[in-house]
Amino acid sequence: MQSDRPSSNINRRVLISGIALLPALSGMPLTRIAEAQSTQGSSLASWNDGAAKQAIIGFVQATTDRASPKFVPPEDRIATFDQDGTLWVEHPIYSQVVYCLDRVPAVVEKDPKLKNVEPFKTVLSGNREAIAKLSLHDLEKVLVATLTGMPVEEFEAEAKKWLATAKDPRWKRLHTDLIYQPMLEVMQYLRGSGFKTYIVTGGGQDFVRAYSQQVYGIPAEQVVGSAGGTKFGYHKDGTPFLTKEPKILLNDDKAGKPEGIHLMIGRRPHAAFGNSDGDRQMLEYTGAGDGARLMMLVLHDDAKREYAYGPAQGLPASKVGTFTQALYDEGKKKSWTVISMKSDWKRIFAFDQSA
Amino acid sequence: MQSDRPSSNINRRVLISGIALLPALSGMPLTRIAEAQSTQGSSLASWNDGAAKQAIIGFVQATTDRASPKFVPPEDRIATFDQDGTLWVEHPIYSQVVYCLDRVPAVVEKDPKLKNVEPFKTVLSGNREAIAKLSLHDLEKVLVATLTGMPVEEFEAEAKKWLATAKDPRWKRLHTDLIYQPMLEVMQYLRGSGFKTYIVTGGGQDFVRAYSQQVYGIPAEQVVGSAGGTKFGYHKDGTPFLTKEPKILLNDDKAGKPEGIHLMIGRRPHAAFGNSDGDRQMLEYTGAGDGARLMMLVLHDDAKREYAYGPAQGLPASKVGTFTQALYDEGKKKSWTVISMKSDWKRIFAFDQSA
Repeated sequence: MQSDRPSSNINRRVLISGIALLPALSGMPLTRIAEAQSTQGSSLASWNDGAAKQAIIGFVQATTDRASPKFVPPEDRIATFDQDGTLWVEHPIYSQVVYCLDRVPAVVEKDPKLKNVEPFKTVLSGNREAIAKLSLHDLEKVLVATLTGMPVEEFEAEAKKWLATAKDPRWKRLHTDLIYQPMLEVMQYLRGSGFKTYIVTGGGQDFVRAYSQQVYGIPAEQVVGSAGGTKFGYHKDGTPFLTKEPKILLNDDKAGKPEGIHLMIGRRPHAAFGNSDGDRQMLEYTGAGDGARLMMLVLHDDAKREYAYGPAQGLPASKVGTFTQALYDEGKKKSWTVISMKSDWKRIFAFDQSA
Repeated sequence: MQSDRPSSNINRRVLISGIALLPALSGMPLTRIAEAQSTQGSSLASWNDGAAKQAIIGFVQATTDRASPKFVPPEDRIATFDQDGTLWVEHPIYSQVVYCLDRVPAVVEKDPKLKNVEPFKTVLSGNREAIAKLSLHDLEKVLVATLTGMPVEEFEAEAKKWLATAKDPRWKRLHTDLIYQPMLEVMQYLRGSGFKTYIVTGGGQDFVRAYSQQVYGIPAEQVVGSAGGTKFGYHKDGTPFLTKEPKILLNDDKAGKPEGIHLMIGRRPHAAFGNSDGDRQMLEYTGAGDGARLMMLVLHDDAKREYAYGPAQGLPASKVGTFTQALYDEGKKKSWTVISMKSDWKRIFAFDQSA
């Protein structure tokens, strides 16, 4: 599963352009745990009436009505969701990259000789322009140093600590507050209709698992993401443990998404949601199955409430979540449904009370 | 996850010694689908009273009673089961190896030049003594030729066809009839108590997924097994498909079992069942967690109703499912529970009405 192309995903992940917008590095003095998102949404309350909402409802009705020719047995009801840009904000930089940069001081404290070694020296300087200019190769060093080499429980604890404190600079809120409320409602609606909901993300599997249950209601085993290997070993007292290894097992982006779905789920989804060229193969694979299939693409066309970038309507291109004109055209041809954040969503976030 | 040691698992799998006992190659003219196993068993009806049965019941009570200090929240209730020798008969040879040998004629028909090439020539000869003498390297060629190179749906269809017809030579029954009824009852009892049951097998993930729902009530996504990569591609008409690749991603045996559990499930099990040294690390990893944990080892000590091989009570060693004296001793020391097939099980198979 793509273990021979370790850097293409990192390429999409890294998003150097956004680093200059980062808040000061290191955690902020906040302790509030991300609150459970509103759960009133199985009625799709945050959706405006329109083609997107109707596509979702029509799909659920067709697949769950035993009298329907497109009925799907409960055990085959699988729905997959990309995360960055589909379930939460990805602009201007993936939250996990912020996490990795924020972790550098702790890594250096543990291994002080890194203090004067690049790229750690530059990251520690806090000079955002210099950080933004780091090469991909340098950023890979940061990812390896901050995501591997520790027991899996230690990584999970560190990620949770960061998630409970670090804030997005624009909204001054926890990253996990920047989940799209309408998408939460879709997931709840699908689960209430017997679907198993999966996250299928190019992001790190272990990172997303640190908050998936609390934030999305999705258990760890239903998170498919880019995954490194682990190595089983023993402490001196004989206690076994797993260490995160700097070896990529699953590069869960582009063709890696259907490959990861086969590895981790073993069945073709009936519904798939994405927002970029990284999701194209997942949507194609989903759409190639028999019967009712739902393929949806989130279009970021709301500069005021979130961001505007993408292929249609003259939106500027973006380095994150590249949604090319070619993907847009393929989706139109194949009757995939585009979700306009601006038109289809009454509100974007649970904390947005303007709706 | 052990992609650098591709042959150690095959080593355990191959079991040359048993090949001489094989029935004639190629499918038999039977079409009966494996019947759903009896489901009366949440009462552990096929278990004799004793330490093993009490260990299971005590564990379930301790983990599901909210007043218990060892209560486990439902979302954390994970139980993992080895398959070969733990859930179904593995002696004298793993069923999947029989499948691979049985597939050779079809592979040669598709690629006739293999007819006179070893090891295919020997397998086609039907000479069991000669087949039993094939080298590990030769048997790997058979596995690669019969398990990879085809679309995932084609593999699944072929495996299902074989499972619906091929019979075990001793019992003259489908391989899927040779499931241990007491273990089915344990799985049903655990599921009825809110546990998610997983198969964690050294066998092929895609092979076991072909029957796991029907035979064990375990959906494809809850089967963790040795897994090769797949490759996403397109047919000429643009339809996407996945091809099974001759590349090992997960060698799900020994240390690969806890590593596979982390990759596929992301959490430590609370209960784990095995029968061999290949399960040792999974049981150790399970036992290293806090609170109530249940580790059990099936001992094959019933030569009359099944087979007798293993470490204790003077049983002869076996090349399958090596259950060493060292594992037995470690289990005793760590209070793992040994299940005696002879003493603990009223009956072995659903079709056995002697109980």
